[in-house]
Amino acid sequence: MTQKKRFSISKSSVILYGRHAVISALQNPKRHIEQLICTPENANELKKYTDKVTIAERKEIDAMLSKDAVHQGIALICKALPDTPLEDIISQAEEMENCKVLILDQVTDPQNIGAIIRSAVAFDTLALILQDKNSPAENGAMAKAAAGLMEYLPICRVTNLSRAIEQLQKAGFWTIGMDGYAKNTLDKIKKGGKNAIIMGSEGKGMRRLVEENCDITVKLPMNEKAESLNVATAAAIVLYEMNKGC
Amino acid sequence: MTQKKRFSISKSSVILYGRHAVISALQNPKRHIEQLICTPENANELKKYTDKVTIAERKEIDAMLSKDAVHQGIALICKALPDTPLEDIISQAEEMENCKVLILDQVTDPQNIGAIIRSAVAFDTLALILQDKNSPAENGAMAKAAAGLMEYLPICRVTNLSRAIEQLQKAGFWTIGMDGYAKNTLDKIKKGGKNAIIMGSEGKGMRRLVEENCDITVKLPMNEKAESLNVATAAAIVLYEMNKGC
Repeated sequence: MTQKKRFSISKSSVILYGRHAVISALQNPKRHIEQLICTPENANELKKYTDKVTIAERKEIDAMLSKDAVHQGIALICKALPDTPLEDIISQAEEMENCKVLILDQVTDPQNIGAIIRSAVAFDTLALILQDKNSPAENGAMAKAAAGLMEYLPICRVTNLSRAIEQLQKAGFWTIGMDGYAKNTLDKIKKGGKNAIIMGSEGKGMRRLVEENCDITVKLPMNEKAESLNVATAAAIVLYEMNKGC
Repeated sequence: MTQKKRFSISKSSVILYGRHAVISALQNPKRHIEQLICTPENANELKKYTDKVTIAERKEIDAMLSKDAVHQGIALICKALPDTPLEDIISQAEEMENCKVLILDQVTDPQNIGAIIRSAVAFDTLALILQDKNSPAENGAMAKAAAGLMEYLPICRVTNLSRAIEQLQKAGFWTIGMDGYAKNTLDKIKKGGKNAIIMGSEGKGMRRLVEENCDITVKLPMNEKAESLNVATAAAIVLYEMNKGC
C-alpha cells in the first residue's frame, strides 16, 4: 500500500508561515490557497478561513521550511500574488493628487524587502517596483518580515528600471534617488505631488544608469560615524518623511 | 601531553564577531581586548590593531558562536563595555542646549537593540537607557546588528526606569513616550531642547507605570492597516524626526 502524499507543493507554489502572514493571506480574496497546514492547537481558529486544512505535527512543518523559520505551527501552501503591471499603477496614480511609489535597485535580501513592504503599507505607498532579474521572488521569509502586510501592497516587477523611471516621469512623477553622497537632504525637499523614490542596496547604492535617470538625488541627514543605515531602516525613514504633506 | 587550550573565554568575556563590529571594537581605547581569533586570510589586516591574534580555521570559529552567526572569519574575545552611570549622562547634558536620550522598556531582542544602537548613533543620540533586569547584556548579535557603532554609544542600565525618568525630568528633560494609541503625533510636537524618548516593546508597548511618568505620549502617524512597526524601525524614525531642529 502506498501512502498518499500529505503535502502537495508544486513548482509554482510558495509556502508562507507564521500567524500574521498566513491569516492575512487567507483573508486576501486575490490569494489562491492550496493547502493550510497547522498543528492541532491552531486548527479550530484557522478552519473559519478555509476548509483546505491539514493537521500536522510541528516537526512535519519544521521539515517543510528552512531551519530558522519561526512558523508558530502554521504554514500555507499557496500561489504567489499576481504581479501588478506598471501601466496599472500609472493609471491609478492619474486619479490621485498625491502619491508615491518605491523603486528598489539590487536589493536582494527577502527579509529586507519584507520589512520594506511593512513600512510601505504603514506610510501609504501606492506600489513597490522591483527589477525582475535581480530581486527575489515572493517567499515565506519576505511575508513573515512584512508581518501580514504583503497582501496589501501591489508589487510590480519590470525588466528595465531606467525605462520604468522614464515612464513614471512621463506620467508626472518626480523621481528622487537616495544617495549617501548627495548634496541635498531629504527633509529639505518639497513634499506632496507624485513621487517615485529610488533606493539601492546598502553599501553599493543605486547603479549609475539608474541614478542618472533621477530628477534629484538626496541623502538622509546623519552623523558621519554612521556611514549608512540598513536599507530597510533607511526606507522606513524615507517613506515616513515623504508621507508628510500628502 | 595535554594540549594548551586555544581560546580562553572567561565568564565575564563577550565574543564579538564580524568585520565591522570587531574592527570598531579594536579601535576603541575603552575596550579591553583579550584575544582576536581570525582565519589566515584576515590575519595581515587585523595584526595592525592588536598583537593578541590567534589564527584559526573557519570551523573553529563556527564552533565558538551560535550557528547563525555570520562571522566572516573574525571573532574577538573581550570585556563588555563599562556601563555609563545616569549621573554622567545628566552631567554631560547640562552643558548642551539640545540633546536626546532613548529609553527602552522591555525590549529584549539583542538584534533589535543593536539595530537601535546603529540608528541612535546615526541620529546623534546622547545615550541609550535600559532597565538592568529586563534587557540583554552586551553580546555578539547586538554588536553585529549595530554595524560597529556600539563602540560610540554610552549605554546606561538602571534598576528602576520610572525613577530614571524622574531624574531626567528634574534635569530639564522633556519625556516623550511612544504609544500607538496616543492622540498626538510625533511630527507635530516641538523639537529641540532636551528630550528623553521612551519606547516599549512591539505589541505590548510601555508598562503603565513607565507611561504615567511621561510628560506627553505620541504616536507615529501611519496607515491603520499597519497596527505597529518593528521596534527598531519605529526607533529609527523617531530618532530621525527628533534630530530635526537640533
